[in-house]
Amino acid sequence: MKKLKRSSRLVEMTQYLLARPHTLISLTAFADRYQSAKSSISEDLAIIKEVFEEESIGELHTLAGAAGGVKFIPLMGEESALGIMEKICLKLEEPDRVLPGGYLYMTDMLGQPELLADVGRMFATAFSGKKIDVIMTVETKGISLAYATAACLNIPVVIVRRDNKVTEGSAVSINYVSGSTKRIQTMSLARRALKEHSNVLIIDDFMKAGGTVKGMMDLLYEFKAKVAGVGVFVESGEVELEERLLEDYISLAKLTAVDMKTKQTTVVPGNYFKD
Amino acid sequence: MKKLKRSSRLVEMTQYLLARPHTLISLTAFADRYQSAKSSISEDLAIIKEVFEEESIGELHTLAGAAGGVKFIPLMGEESALGIMEKICLKLEEPDRVLPGGYLYMTDMLGQPELLADVGRMFATAFSGKKIDVIMTVETKGISLAYATAACLNIPVVIVRRDNKVTEGSAVSINYVSGSTKRIQTMSLARRALKEHSNVLIIDDFMKAGGTVKGMMDLLYEFKAKVAGVGVFVESGEVELEERLLEDYISLAKLTAVDMKTKQTTVVPGNYFKD
Repeated sequence: MKKLKRSSRLVEMTQYLLARPHTLISLTAFADRYQSAKSSISEDLAIIKEVFEEESIGELHTLAGAAGGVKFIPLMGEESALGIMEKICLKLEEPDRVLPGGYLYMTDMLGQPELLADVGRMFATAFSGKKIDVIMTVETKGISLAYATAACLNIPVVIVRRDNKVTEGSAVSINYVSGSTKRIQTMSLARRALKEHSNVLIIDDFMKAGGTVKGMMDLLYEFKAKVAGVGVFVESGEVELEERLLEDYISLAKLTAVDMKTKQTTVVPGNYFKD
Repeated sequence: MKKLKRSSRLVEMTQYLLARPHTLISLTAFADRYQSAKSSISEDLAIIKEVFEEESIGELHTLAGAAGGVKFIPLMGEESALGIMEKICLKLEEPDRVLPGGYLYMTDMLGQPELLADVGRMFATAFSGKKIDVIMTVETKGISLAYATAACLNIPVVIVRRDNKVTEGSAVSINYVSGSTKRIQTMSLARRALKEHSNVLIIDDFMKAGGTVKGMMDLLYEFKAKVAGVGVFVESGEVELEERLLEDYISLAKLTAVDMKTKQTTVVPGNYFKD
């Protein structure tokens, strides 16, 4: 790269850091890349850090010493998150989203890049303190959320299938009981998709009693992997407490009431915003 | 937002633009946001534009006049793209990727955020001249590529299902014949997922004869939608010319030979790099 002026260097460093979240970049690497003294690089990083933190884009963690460097951690401040989530809840309350069975149509929203980027950053913030190696979800509708979160955390996604496809090689399958419908279902994961002892964040779009998430937890047990956390986009509040199959999860929104006659629903920010 | 110095403003503007690809932002909006004169904003944008183009991150299109402003178009230069794709091809050639039936295991690679960001930018570049309203893919393995491309183009994704789920409402289903296995299969798309007359970019992970892509094209016909382009990550070269069901597509890589005995494969950059 040709030598840049400070103003150009700040632009380049900003894009470089944003494209590499959770990646340690040494001062030496930056100094080489920009043919500049480490002291200049440090000054640049101080400017970037201040803007990122002021605008609640994320944090720049600086590690001192020979092995030191800088790492960009994408985060979203709680105030911004709540503001965005309140708008999302209003959208989720649109009456034509109510489907037979009390389900909520939200596939369109889960296809919007802007919403996904925001929600991914919320999940990344919610689980920022945890050691996570990989994100797991089950096909199909949680996949976009899983990738959006993975992009912020810079970790891979594994997708649990509802069948066992030929193109995945040998797989581990389990049966699980859907908590709300009580039906027995199957899910499977390619054996080579997940290393043993991985720390896994489970992400899903919707949770009623939690049967699907519980199924994924059982599957993780087969892989000797650990659940580092569970994050759901919308949880249904229409579940009796004793039917609830898990306690420890984060929800970003909660569907508290569905009136099938008037097609009116109430959606409020989830338990993530309650503490 | 509090008033920033130029250096901080450059950082903030860079992140603001990167987070909003293909979105027209007026000079007035920037001037208000940063409480700065439009002339200063224009100077900042000139610096950002130069770095983005020099480093082949993308283009900043500036539109003059009262309705004018600036738009960030993520692109990847052909040289960078070819360098990245050659590394991807080497990874795809690893012998333990060959699965029964001559399929290639690449689910792990399609779960890596960095690879996805690169490939998404390649597809976005390949189709940058087309009018595209929405990206379509079929579950499951093409989904991550579709979202990565959609993030660059700032358009939504619709996912064709292999079954018709209760949570999607009424759907249009079609039968199609898989070109290589000649089996009849079904795919369906929720009626409300796609507006009539949309311009649709089809993205998929793997193409043999093209039966699945052809199925999606037939489905688009039912929605009175237009195919704006077809992009596949890997195409199989092991298809007789007369079996090929479509001509007009872009592939990023091509699997030219699979030796099931030695598990050796040859993967080369696809037709995108041929002209």
